[in-house]
Amino acid sequence: VKVSLVAVGSELLRTGFRETHSFWLTQRLEAEGFEVVSRQVVSDEEEEILRALEHARSRAFLVIATGGIGPTRDDRTREALAAAVGRRLRLHPRAETQVKSWCRRHRFPFTKSQRRQALFPEGALVLPNRVGSAPGIWFRDPQGIVLVLPGVFSELTAMFQPLAARLRSLPRSFPATAIFRSAGVGESRVDARIRATVRRFPRVEVTTLASPGEVTIQLRSRGPSAAAEVKRCRHRVAGVLGVDLVSERDETLEQVLLNLLRHRGWRLATAESCTAGLVAARLARVPGSSSVFPGGVVCYNDRAKERLLRVPRETLARWGAVSRPTALAMARGAARSLGAEVGVAVTGIAGPGGGTPLKPVGTVHWAVVHPGGRSALSRRLSGDREKIRAHAACLALDLVRRALLEKRSGAVRRS
Amino acid sequence: VKVSLVAVGSELLRTGFRETHSFWLTQRLEAEGFEVVSRQVVSDEEEEILRALEHARSRAFLVIATGGIGPTRDDRTREALAAAVGRRLRLHPRAETQVKSWCRRHRFPFTKSQRRQALFPEGALVLPNRVGSAPGIWFRDPQGIVLVLPGVFSELTAMFQPLAARLRSLPRSFPATAIFRSAGVGESRVDARIRATVRRFPRVEVTTLASPGEVTIQLRSRGPSAAAEVKRCRHRVAGVLGVDLVSERDETLEQVLLNLLRHRGWRLATAESCTAGLVAARLARVPGSSSVFPGGVVCYNDRAKERLLRVPRETLARWGAVSRPTALAMARGAARSLGAEVGVAVTGIAGPGGGTPLKPVGTVHWAVVHPGGRSALSRRLSGDREKIRAHAACLALDLVRRALLEKRSGAVRRS
Repeated sequence: VKVSLVAVGSELLRTGFRETHSFWLTQRLEAEGFEVVSRQVVSDEEEEILRALEHARSRAFLVIATGGIGPTRDDRTREALAAAVGRRLRLHPRAETQVKSWCRRHRFPFTKSQRRQALFPEGALVLPNRVGSAPGIWFRDPQGIVLVLPGVFSELTAMFQPLAARLRSLPRSFPATAIFRSAGVGESRVDARIRATVRRFPRVEVTTLASPGEVTIQLRSRGPSAAAEVKRCRHRVAGVLGVDLVSERDETLEQVLLNLLRHRGWRLATAESCTAGLVAARLARVPGSSSVFPGGVVCYNDRAKERLLRVPRETLARWGAVSRPTALAMARGAARSLGAEVGVAVTGIAGPGGGTPLKPVGTVHWAVVHPGGRSALSRRLSGDREKIRAHAACLALDLVRRALLEKRSGAVRRS
Repeated sequence: VKVSLVAVGSELLRTGFRETHSFWLTQRLEAEGFEVVSRQVVSDEEEEILRALEHARSRAFLVIATGGIGPTRDDRTREALAAAVGRRLRLHPRAETQVKSWCRRHRFPFTKSQRRQALFPEGALVLPNRVGSAPGIWFRDPQGIVLVLPGVFSELTAMFQPLAARLRSLPRSFPATAIFRSAGVGESRVDARIRATVRRFPRVEVTTLASPGEVTIQLRSRGPSAAAEVKRCRHRVAGVLGVDLVSERDETLEQVLLNLLRHRGWRLATAESCTAGLVAARLARVPGSSSVFPGGVVCYNDRAKERLLRVPRETLARWGAVSRPTALAMARGAARSLGAEVGVAVTGIAGPGGGTPLKPVGTVHWAVVHPGGRSALSRRLSGDREKIRAHAACLALDLVRRALLEKRSGAVRRS
């Protein structure tokens, strides 16, 4: 069954206000075997909601609208739905009972505006809302199903579970999918390398998504031989990407890295200058990371590098804070200070100020030290401060990953 | 002039792939005085694009579509546009010249599929694309204007600037706006506190957006007295929120905090356990922060707390890592180790494991030490690991902010 989503709310069209309900619903609906074919975001105006619902109904059998069913005058989704499906609004006794009991529980008077939440198009059913005041609406006619859920995220998520059970009676189809992650190479290079391979699988849809330093590749196919095809395609793509591939399963770079460390029985300490905690924060995102990640140091000025990491003053004076010798000294210092076998360091110029002709904004040095050797890397990254920092943090994790892979295969590289 | 956005691309409807073009375009269009009244995301199918364009044209005078104008067979926006506006597709000589010259520059053969990019609906104009191969389309008829821009972000952004100049001949209206940020109080409490105040300004639209620990409030109004009304409303709201208000202008919590530190001539060092670098990373997001933020320590296990922050072993043994005495010792240790006047510490249980009946998941302790005194806080935060960490990081910054404000007004609190 095809699904069309409609998010209602003027605020969702404002600068800086990201509409996240659709993303969440898409994820859940896909997992349930439904295909989202379109999304709309519209203002609170009744006419806009009405037209959006009509349009959505013309595109998909199942329409899910969120928002606009609260008690205030701005909440017009009920009226728009009634107009879109050609039914009158009526007080629904079961809905009224629910709103009343919510008001009682929260010691709110059951006013006329509260009562509006119990107005349902004729023939519609009540979707109980255990978190908030507004019950959801289930409407079905020969043209399809329209569901209206609250625009409050916690209410929406709480209501989805029982709803999903109900939707399972509709025809569903599960696509075969595979998710990969590569790190350390750009999206265009990944694209170019896998292009010829994926072209041999015309029924597999390939989408790539780039974030600074990483590329996520999604394979997707429907039909009887979909699973086998996706599997074969995955195998080929993995072969092409080689060591640039972080994971053939949906694992993050930090998960893979922590597993590599665990496998060797080593711990990792971080020393960060320009990334200032981003590398550590990514490692700590993984539950249980503390067993291999004791911690790290954020040394945002030279004095901190000397004090906490014992970077020799001469190194700083001679080579500067953004240099290979300083990065190596920082990595060694972090490992020593935190009693870890592996140390990784990143130091660079994130901008917008601080660049020089010899070390322009975006210049970053990384270093890894481990019992089998050490490696260092330097690159000039592009983009704004935020992007440079995110990219630098990602490449720090990736440098350790590559160093551990080399170590595992017996090679010791002294670059 | 009202604007309706249409983003074309099946990948934009997939799980995990966030559609960001619309957000960027909304921001730019608002700044130019246009009002975005609806957004749609549709698949690559021609029929879907056609219906979306028709629907968009029925809602707004200006329609901006992105994506689906490349050289591959999946790129069907041209055909859909021609059908939507009732014109035939024809080879546009100027567009052809541009595609040819792009192919020459990039040493690509000018194939039949490349040529498709020069197919334009009759009467449409060419929007030059200096970055990629596909020229954009400008179509105007009595019903309105339809623009089609590339789905590649760098091409889209490069093309917008000259386009904006061209759009300025259309009627525009700039709303008066104000953006506030509060920290340390939840969205519902902020809502409840400002409700009565904003009700007195019926022409001012109020939207709130919550992230863990912070609430952003946007005021917005159109019309002749909009600026004065927004200003008065802003003043009243600020009065109601008092010290919970981080900024009356569009400043972030970290910007405000760094300014408070600068004002006093103090530096801040961080000691993080469960947030593992998030506090430091937020401070370092602000360009120039290194003058007041020397750095910090991420101590993810007890040994790191002892080694780097000299937290006494007895404190850890007696009170545990997640406790007020440990938080205070960490804050002191960070300030001392990094030679800073102010130290802030956060230690807690982010979950999903590690909770105990006495210290369940979500338990967090914060501490600040500064020359005028110290303060500590503990709370039980809700949500998943990611949310607890983000919330804990935000409250750490906010605790320092509040401590500095108290200090400024002469009070010394020993809580």
